[in-house]
Amino acid sequence: MSGKSLTLGVFGFGCVGSGLYETLRQSNFKGANIKRFCIANPDKERSAPNALFTTEADELLNDPEIDVIVELIDNSEAAYQIVTKALRNGKAVVTANKKLLAEHLQELIALQDETGQPILYEGAAAASIPIIRNLEEYYDNDLLREVSGILNGSTNFILSAIEDGGTFDAALELAQKLGFAESDPTLDVDGWDAKFKLTILLAHAFGIVVEPSDIPHVGITRISPQVQRIANERRERVKLVGKCWREDKKVFAHVIPTFVTQEDELNQVENEVNGVVVEGAFSQRQFFRGKGAGSFPTAAAVLSDISALTYDYRYEYKKLNREKDFEFVNDHSIWVHVSGNNRDVLPLYAFEEVVNTFRSPEHSYVEGRIGLRNLINLSKEGNWSAVALSSAAVSQFEKQNNLELAN
Amino acid sequence: MSGKSLTLGVFGFGCVGSGLYETLRQSNFKGANIKRFCIANPDKERSAPNALFTTEADELLNDPEIDVIVELIDNSEAAYQIVTKALRNGKAVVTANKKLLAEHLQELIALQDETGQPILYEGAAAASIPIIRNLEEYYDNDLLREVSGILNGSTNFILSAIEDGGTFDAALELAQKLGFAESDPTLDVDGWDAKFKLTILLAHAFGIVVEPSDIPHVGITRISPQVQRIANERRERVKLVGKCWREDKKVFAHVIPTFVTQEDELNQVENEVNGVVVEGAFSQRQFFRGKGAGSFPTAAAVLSDISALTYDYRYEYKKLNREKDFEFVNDHSIWVHVSGNNRDVLPLYAFEEVVNTFRSPEHSYVEGRIGLRNLINLSKEGNWSAVALSSAAVSQFEKQNNLELAN
Repeated sequence: MSGKSLTLGVFGFGCVGSGLYETLRQSNFKGANIKRFCIANPDKERSAPNALFTTEADELLNDPEIDVIVELIDNSEAAYQIVTKALRNGKAVVTANKKLLAEHLQELIALQDETGQPILYEGAAAASIPIIRNLEEYYDNDLLREVSGILNGSTNFILSAIEDGGTFDAALELAQKLGFAESDPTLDVDGWDAKFKLTILLAHAFGIVVEPSDIPHVGITRISPQVQRIANERRERVKLVGKCWREDKKVFAHVIPTFVTQEDELNQVENEVNGVVVEGAFSQRQFFRGKGAGSFPTAAAVLSDISALTYDYRYEYKKLNREKDFEFVNDHSIWVHVSGNNRDVLPLYAFEEVVNTFRSPEHSYVEGRIGLRNLINLSKEGNWSAVALSSAAVSQFEKQNNLELAN
Repeated sequence: MSGKSLTLGVFGFGCVGSGLYETLRQSNFKGANIKRFCIANPDKERSAPNALFTTEADELLNDPEIDVIVELIDNSEAAYQIVTKALRNGKAVVTANKKLLAEHLQELIALQDETGQPILYEGAAAASIPIIRNLEEYYDNDLLREVSGILNGSTNFILSAIEDGGTFDAALELAQKLGFAESDPTLDVDGWDAKFKLTILLAHAFGIVVEPSDIPHVGITRISPQVQRIANERRERVKLVGKCWREDKKVFAHVIPTFVTQEDELNQVENEVNGVVVEGAFSQRQFFRGKGAGSFPTAAAVLSDISALTYDYRYEYKKLNREKDFEFVNDHSIWVHVSGNNRDVLPLYAFEEVVNTFRSPEHSYVEGRIGLRNLINLSKEGNWSAVALSSAAVSQFEKQNNLELAN
């Protein structure tokens, strides 16, 4: 057994960067050493020798000794400059930056072909869970039907925290204090972060490369105590679920708060943990759960990518090259629970089909099937809270529908 | 993207063999085709053209066109002959035969080195769950602490079935009828099958290669309705858990029925499903769940191995080559619940420490810490039923111990 020995230049010494430094020190891994960290603020005190740090990006990017650029900064625009320049300079790249990847995936795939240099990014989707590598390598020939999951640790932490009646704001503050929320919490709570990760999973699961803005999404900011109460009554939980799935050649995707029954794998995913379900025709239903954020869990994924580079591993984007006739659909309709405190005007008009309505002085809701565009409008402009119904409830409604059609 | 195109010779057309045939037909995978199946009984009706079948092993093993031998038969001694001859004849091997692998692991690793030919066997441990590949590739540099899981579908099916008061015999019969029990059920219910898989995981997690007989184990045949009742009272479940873990340089392993709390990942693993927990210093606690038996789920793992061979993938046994100072320990003591219907003579003498005793006319038990050799003797010769206490209970006892030591 032998692999290359790699020299690394690392951008960022925050939560993940310092975690990587510590992980490399403690691990038995001998395949790489960090030559230099590039950081923004030279005056911060850091848990590594001063000589390791520079503020000059080009000291890393132009250093012929450096084989791999590890990009672990928050700013996705700066990351884009770093990563593209690194590839063009003949360096492999490891990054955990989901926003960068999701927004430039097409280009970054092309740039890998053009430069011959790989980018690995296991830490960018569900942090410690080895989902990208398994989609690429292990499920590459299974006829995948669905990849879904709890992909954002901070919203899951918040949703766990407000289940017993806590407020959204207090939960968000706690998540930020514990380091489970990103620098800009709106990316998390509005569902963008989960969507970035779903964009990456779509490429590796189904060979679909889209702009994140093409994927419909609803965030968690409107989840009210009343919605939580309904979930508790139904013995379900509200989780922010990102989901992509295939029906024949059509591939669908969305991110939306979802009622999750006790039988559902995602029910048992707590706090900052992530969970991913992969359903294939042959392997059937697989579930992965692990830390979705945090210094060491994300650094562990980054280290696995670095280790893979010592063996010249690269993503082949097998589905992208093979499943050319898959078609991405983002105007589908879904079964939802839409609620608010306006009992006089339930937005029945927006639904394709209504199965339940409820009105009370404090809280009203409607449940039924609705087009995603209508749903997003209701959520954004109408202050309505939207939660997808559990798959158990949906099966029941669809069964009823079929029965009625049959009669 | 391009890999080799492989010609396969497959031994066996039972549950997994026929599943592989179907999987290859339905999948988009173009990297391999089956030239011939070798089967034992030529007169059985089969869902594939007659010309595909032969009863002559050498027609496959000596065929220069065949690149890969896929071994999917039940008999591990015949499998040993097939697999070793295939490697010596310059063919790669894919097998899902855990007994063969566990009993000959040392030799089969050496034979891979000697012949230069790889054996892949993802289907041999936890069927559809990609645990071996992930231990090899993804957790290769993490400081693993524990790999544990429900590794045997038929005992898990039986344990699920008797929770509500059903009898062991009826549950076993149902498991066999549904195809969830192996040809010889004693390998399952006595814990051998789980132990074979644990033997394989030990090699890939910690680089420890041992004989299966070196791993202490207790089966599920003595799990009584009284034990189930106690589990129900405590809101725990009884699961057959295989576990290996590391404390500094010492590596421990055993297979034993275990009380599992609701907070434990393994609590939610039902029927023929398997679940595996991987705990590393960096990635922290990861959980994988998927079908642990069955035609398609196992064939999916076999197909992934075949696909990996098109890219010249092989196990590097990285831990084996690196962690040379790990020491395997199999005379450790554990916390257990030992019960029977003899209230007069509780086997207190065998325990190192006793924390609870209970006596009634129908059922008596003792809980405490016991050496594994004593435990196995009690189980085998004394007709006592042994169930490991939940990790929650153990933490509590150990905390009490520490408090007492501190005072």
